[in-house]
Amino acid sequence: MADPMLAHCESPVFNRVCIIGLGLIGSSLARAIRQAHIARELVCYDANGAVQSRVEELGLTTHVCATLADAVTNADFIILCVPVGANAALAEEIASHLKPDAILSDVGSVKSSVVAAVSPHVPNGVHFVPAHPVAGTEQSGPDAGFATLFLGRWCILTPPTGTEKRAIDTTSAFWRACGSNVEIMTPAHHDQVLAITSHIPHLIAYNIVGTAAHLEEVTQSEVIKFSAGGFRDFTRIAASDPTMWRDVFLNNKEAVLEMLGRFTEDLTALQRMIRYGDGEGLHELFSHTRAIRRSIIALGQETTAPDFGRRDKPA
Amino acid sequence: MADPMLAHCESPVFNRVCIIGLGLIGSSLARAIRQAHIARELVCYDANGAVQSRVEELGLTTHVCATLADAVTNADFIILCVPVGANAALAEEIASHLKPDAILSDVGSVKSSVVAAVSPHVPNGVHFVPAHPVAGTEQSGPDAGFATLFLGRWCILTPPTGTEKRAIDTTSAFWRACGSNVEIMTPAHHDQVLAITSHIPHLIAYNIVGTAAHLEEVTQSEVIKFSAGGFRDFTRIAASDPTMWRDVFLNNKEAVLEMLGRFTEDLTALQRMIRYGDGEGLHELFSHTRAIRRSIIALGQETTAPDFGRRDKPA
Repeated sequence: MADPMLAHCESPVFNRVCIIGLGLIGSSLARAIRQAHIARELVCYDANGAVQSRVEELGLTTHVCATLADAVTNADFIILCVPVGANAALAEEIASHLKPDAILSDVGSVKSSVVAAVSPHVPNGVHFVPAHPVAGTEQSGPDAGFATLFLGRWCILTPPTGTEKRAIDTTSAFWRACGSNVEIMTPAHHDQVLAITSHIPHLIAYNIVGTAAHLEEVTQSEVIKFSAGGFRDFTRIAASDPTMWRDVFLNNKEAVLEMLGRFTEDLTALQRMIRYGDGEGLHELFSHTRAIRRSIIALGQETTAPDFGRRDKPA
Repeated sequence: MADPMLAHCESPVFNRVCIIGLGLIGSSLARAIRQAHIARELVCYDANGAVQSRVEELGLTTHVCATLADAVTNADFIILCVPVGANAALAEEIASHLKPDAILSDVGSVKSSVVAAVSPHVPNGVHFVPAHPVAGTEQSGPDAGFATLFLGRWCILTPPTGTEKRAIDTTSAFWRACGSNVEIMTPAHHDQVLAITSHIPHLIAYNIVGTAAHLEEVTQSEVIKFSAGGFRDFTRIAASDPTMWRDVFLNNKEAVLEMLGRFTEDLTALQRMIRYGDGEGLHELFSHTRAIRRSIIALGQETTAPDFGRRDKPA
């Protein structure tokens, strides 16, 4: 099947965009911007020299800038695509170089802590519109990105109270041009929603892979051989970027701990059903959960193919 | 990409095979047997009249038998492909109709309880070779099956002590003809290995989908919309057959509760790292788990493509 393409913008949303941090998300954005002509000029900047060279080799940037200050100067839209914990220092460093009326944004998976940490550094006249595209793969780095990563996915904006409507609308237009649907909510609500739809799933995936790695009665080679029984599904998100996810958990502590409390409470109830042989209770829960997947597929957020449409390469 | 095909057997492994229960596994076996010419004759029998009609429509069976007794009479190899809890009654019902030297097998995801429940019904002269193909999708029923489901996957045999080597070898040959790798172990060890590689993953997937369904602060439509952040991965195995999985948990209680104890212990440690802001501890765990996925991919038990090679149908 041919890869889908993004539609060209009728006219570019921005004159100059600056992406800081060219990992999976930053480099996918760069590719989307080029493919759909979302900006006339694109400056890509990464503090890691090897990544910066690779980005230039890949032809992602239209202008090469030697310093971070040069990169953001004259940009209309600056997107921080770094681990959540790195946003504040970065915002502080670039603040005095941002031009009036520029829009500053980010792509972090946590929003309350980012808003609290970045807002104090945003100069008067610059608009801060935090964003979170709910999309990704388990891979990292500038080679892992692709232009259609955001196609059909949701991007959540969490503008602080008092943000100019025009800045919010322009940021929405940017994400729509990348193929996304846009939703606006408060940072606190965002952090609760993502705790259950993203952070807890990652946490328990990391956890079960860790538990399996520590077993003595069952060898690691057995875990690997027989992983097609379900375990291998969890290893995908447990292969996600460690720095990004460390920062997510450190910065969304409250919502994660609250949702984790509910998860554990439910798991204890399930454990009790198993211990006391409550077949009816198990069957009822297992029947109910089937319906949720159907809704996710119906709303276009998941492939219709069984087994994710996965085609294994047999050994 | 073209679907792979199974290689034809040089000569059929069996003259007549009888499959009882034509769900995902039974109907996939029927298709594999036909495609690779593993048996000269194939009798498919399902107690559910609608399933039986569909199996005949699909042309999976070479002989139609009106009764269970007729179906197993003269079969060289009888495979029970029903939920684990249904094996004992089925074995009792067919026992007196099995021909001398026939091999009786099953495909259950739990082995100790199946061996204990079925063995007393196996007549003298009939060989009992329990099996568990570690393969599946989240779909059920005779239409969900496909011939290459077992290709490159492992099938575990757990023959009771004293089983004739010839019966074990023939059962192995059958599974190899279906494209599987074969491993032999004790029922008890099987149940421990599968508790961590399959049963606990299913349990926590069912559990998190259940937790998400009960939230009040986060609506169900938000859970569905933003599921691409990780949650949707879990909905796949939480969409597995409820009856099959109820029986797995009721019949592998001890190993499941033990592994669940370890999982919860590890999760509590992880929760503590988050509460006390132990970034180093989190980063260390998250880095370690990445390596396990690489091994699974290297051993051909997982697709090499990012995101399972999943292509979403954008809404």
